[in-house]
This record gives sequence, C-alpha cells and structure tokens, in this order.
Amino acid sequence: VGGLYGGLLAKAGYPVHFLLRSDYAAVRDQGLRITSPLGDFHLPAPNCYACPSDLPKVDVAIVAWKTTTNAALPEALQACCSDSTLVLVLQNGLDVERPAAEIVGAERVLGGCCFLCCNRVGPGQIQHLDYGRITMGEYGASQAQVSQRMLELASDFHAAGIELQLEPDLRAARWKKLAWNIPFNGLSVALSADTRQIMEDPAAARLAEDLMREVATAAEYCGGLVDEAHIQRLLSDTRSMVPYDSSMRLDHRHGRPMEVEAIFGNPLRAARAAGYEPRKIAMLYDELCFLDRANWKAVD
Amino acid sequence: VGGLYGGLLAKAGYPVHFLLRSDYAAVRDQGLRITSPLGDFHLPAPNCYACPSDLPKVDVAIVAWKTTTNAALPEALQACCSDSTLVLVLQNGLDVERPAAEIVGAERVLGGCCFLCCNRVGPGQIQHLDYGRITMGEYGASQAQVSQRMLELASDFHAAGIELQLEPDLRAARWKKLAWNIPFNGLSVALSADTRQIMEDPAAARLAEDLMREVATAAEYCGGLVDEAHIQRLLSDTRSMVPYDSSMRLDHRHGRPMEVEAIFGNPLRAARAAGYEPRKIAMLYDELCFLDRANWKAVD
Repeated sequence: VGGLYGGLLAKAGYPVHFLLRSDYAAVRDQGLRITSPLGDFHLPAPNCYACPSDLPKVDVAIVAWKTTTNAALPEALQACCSDSTLVLVLQNGLDVERPAAEIVGAERVLGGCCFLCCNRVGPGQIQHLDYGRITMGEYGASQAQVSQRMLELASDFHAAGIELQLEPDLRAARWKKLAWNIPFNGLSVALSADTRQIMEDPAAARLAEDLMREVATAAEYCGGLVDEAHIQRLLSDTRSMVPYDSSMRLDHRHGRPMEVEAIFGNPLRAARAAGYEPRKIAMLYDELCFLDRANWKAVD
Repeated sequence: VGGLYGGLLAKAGYPVHFLLRSDYAAVRDQGLRITSPLGDFHLPAPNCYACPSDLPKVDVAIVAWKTTTNAALPEALQACCSDSTLVLVLQNGLDVERPAAEIVGAERVLGGCCFLCCNRVGPGQIQHLDYGRITMGEYGASQAQVSQRMLELASDFHAAGIELQLEPDLRAARWKKLAWNIPFNGLSVALSADTRQIMEDPAAARLAEDLMREVATAAEYCGGLVDEAHIQRLLSDTRSMVPYDSSMRLDHRHGRPMEVEAIFGNPLRAARAAGYEPRKIAMLYDELCFLDRANWKAVD
C-alpha cells in the first residue's frame, strides 16, 4: 500500500520519503518496481530510509504498514512529524487511527480505507492487480465534515492519478470497508482459499454473506451504515474480481503475524460495547487467534 | 469401531463376521491386531468377507462404518438380515439410524453412541487409546424404554469386556454425544489441531465451549437434555485426555470424505426445524462443507 501510493506520488513529482524494513537494501540498490493497470513504472532511486531517526520532517506522514508493526510507530512519527504534520493512516481495521492520535493528537490525524488488490511480490516489487480507490476522512473532527485540508490532500492524490474520495464520516467508511475485510480476509485464512474459491462454493459464499450481514448489523449498532446496496455491490465485485489472495492469507502463509485485532478484535469489541453480539464474527476471531498463534509456534 | 468391538466379541467366543473393504486382504492373511488398554490381542483368522452377498444371516448386524459409506448399506443389510435380525447402528451423528430403519423397519433398529479414542493405524491394525463405553437405546420404540433385547445385548457385550450402558432415550444420548463431536471433530479440522491444542489455547477452548452450549440449546429445543454437569464433564475429560486426532481430522487429512451431514447437517436441520438457529454450528457446518469439497478437488 505504501509502495504503490508513495510510488505514484513520487512518480508525479512529489517529494516522497519511504521508511522501509526488509526491502530497504533492494529499493536502495534497484529502486521500486511497480506493475499496475494504471501503467507499470520503475523509480530508480527513491528517497529511502531504514532507520526512523533518519527521516526528515514531512507535511504528511502516511502510515501504511501493517498494524502488527505499530510498536515502531512512536519512534517513526516523532522523527518525521513537525507541529503541523498531518498523519494519514491507511491501515485496515477499526480504531486504527488511535495509536497515531495518541502520539500527535487526534486533531492532526486522518484515516483512509484503501480498496485495492495489491501484493508485494518480491523485494521492492509491487504488483497492483485491481482497484485502487482510497476513501479518506477526518479522525479527530468533532463532527462529520469535509475539511479544507482533505480537499488539499485530494488534489495532490488526484494529480498523482490516485482515486481519492472524501468521506464526511470516517468511521462509517471504516465499517463499509470491514464489510469486505471481515469475511474475505478471515475466510481466506480459515478456509485456505482465494476470493474465487470462496465465491464459487455455495457454503463458503453463504458464510461470507452471513458475516457481511453481521458487520452491517454491528455497524448499525455503532452508528455506521452498511446498507443492502453496499452488500450486494461487494458480493458482486468479489464474484467478478480476479482470484485474489488477501494480505491476511499471504501473511499467514509466510508465517507473519496477522492483523487479527485491528480487523476482527476491535470491531467485535465495538459491537459488544454497543450491545450486539456478532456470533459468526466472534467465531472467526477465535479461529484466527488460534491459527495466528499456531503459526507462530510452527515458525519458532 | 467395528474392528475393536467386533474383535472383543470374537475374542470372547462369539461368532463374529466382519465385512471389510480396504483391509480385507490384510485381515484374511494376517488377522486382526488390536492394541488396547483392555489388553492387546491378535485374532489370527477372524471370519471376514469382502463382498456383502457372502455374509451369512446373523442375529445382530452392527453398522460401524462411516455414514459416508452408507450407499452400500441396503446390499449389506439385505444379505445378512433375517426377519428377526436386530440392527445396531454405532455411527456418529443424529438420525443415523434412519437409513437402516428404512431397510429393515424402525422396530428392529437400535442405536449406540461410542465414547472412545480409537484409530485404524494400518491394514488390520487398530489402536484403541482410551475410553470405550457404548450407550445404547431403541430407535423405533414408541416410548422411552429399556427393552428385554437391550438387556440381552448388554449381557453379551459385558461378557466381552465392553462397557455398555442402556439408554431409555436414544435421541437424548445422541445429543449428549454430539456435544463432544460437534466442537471437537469440527474444530480439529477447521483449526488443524488435536484435542490438546484446542483445549490449551484460550480462543479455541472458548469456541469449543460456545459450540457445546449451542448443542445444549439445540438439544433442549429438540427434546433432549445436555445439562451443565455434562458440559463440564466433557470439557474436563477432554482437557485430561491424551492428545487425540478425531476421526474426522484423520479422514480429512487422508483425503477421505468427512461425516459432515451426519454430525453437523442433521443436528443443524433438526434445531432449525424446532425453531432454533445455532449460529456457530451453522458456521462450522459451512466451513466443513467447503473444506470437504476442497479436499476432494485436491485429491482428484
């Protein structure tokens, strides 16, 4: 996610600074290679850093790593944020802006949901398969609004060829995104299946839809709205999508920790706090907690 | 199950006739080898048959193969049943006596739930690990009762060293057994885990208990009773059990079809017909349907 959007912004001439972990050496030596329906491109020498303290101060800090890496967030944000830096959190899940808000203050945080099929296929190599839209909103705003700074960010993203949609209600947008992530990230791991295998099997497709409806009910209890038209659109988009391995499935397959708490634990706890028990989401959460731990034990 | 109980009856001197499939040649040539906490033993030359039509008429036909083999039931029962033969169905699940009842008449059918840890570990080789009790009841009886013929069967089984408990209410006994099979057979496949791995993980153990409580509620709707003491006993027995791979997990691992309909589909449909929707059992059923089909595709 960071490689794709950062790459597009850099290609458009914006000064982008990449904080990298395992891909640092590859990107420093060979640059960043992106294949995309928007056009393949190669950035031969992007600004890249292995160490957070080397980062310069920036206008906008985009947090695009997995929530499972958030332990490194304080050091990274303290390094690159001035008093006026905005933080745009592009992670999956619910309440994923909270860690950034605790560091720089909620009023400087925005969040975005990314609708894209995109995988890292090798060191410094990104394969963007389909979609690409971001829906972005204010996190700390006391009321639903489209702010001036949202419009300015949108203008830059549009100039880089990125579809960015402004959301007056970020939390509602988060629930809409969860309506896809909860069934398809979860079942891709629980069933070891890609999106097409799930949608082509009657039992798995029914279960995906059941989970989606539990997300809709949870959203309703929490003040969001995932309406029937949205559910039908997600199902039909997923049916016609190229067979896709969710990032959670790739993480699990490669022995990396999964984003179980951001994508399942936080929404489950929010639903319960609002008085609703989503039983199938709770079951999927328990299954994923087990599979995540079993995976770590297997790798040890 | 058939090898163990049939083996114990044969060892005690009862005339037992084994209908075998893939193990036929091994048992014919090398006999039946059983390791068991009741004492290891070897039957060098048991009566065994590969073809149902070779079976003699018997007093009691014990149906101990998987429900997934039931397509062969009519031929087998027609071969070995006289007008007075009793059929004892020792399969797992709910309504598993119905196919036999449709062939010989419900009034000649009894059912039994086997509580045992027992695996076929090679051709003609059975490893009985733990437990061994059967709870048996009348299937076609118009009211709950312990019949004279139940007492006679019990006397023979006891003489062979088999713990057999008489149940006035077979259907209630079936639900009590399902309270173990539904969580532990199902999760062993969904989580690729043995009983100990499930019970030692907080999320998996919580999920097993949730599923057990849904079975208890379903039983209540269907006129059975799975009380709190039974739930606590099952949980504590499973916690202290040697790590056990359920037969369903072994079936799945070896690319054989799983007993999804008998153990999950039938109870789920019974609960729904009685007005209760057990959401986690329904989810597990959908997952297992998918995994079963995916497994067959992988073997193809």
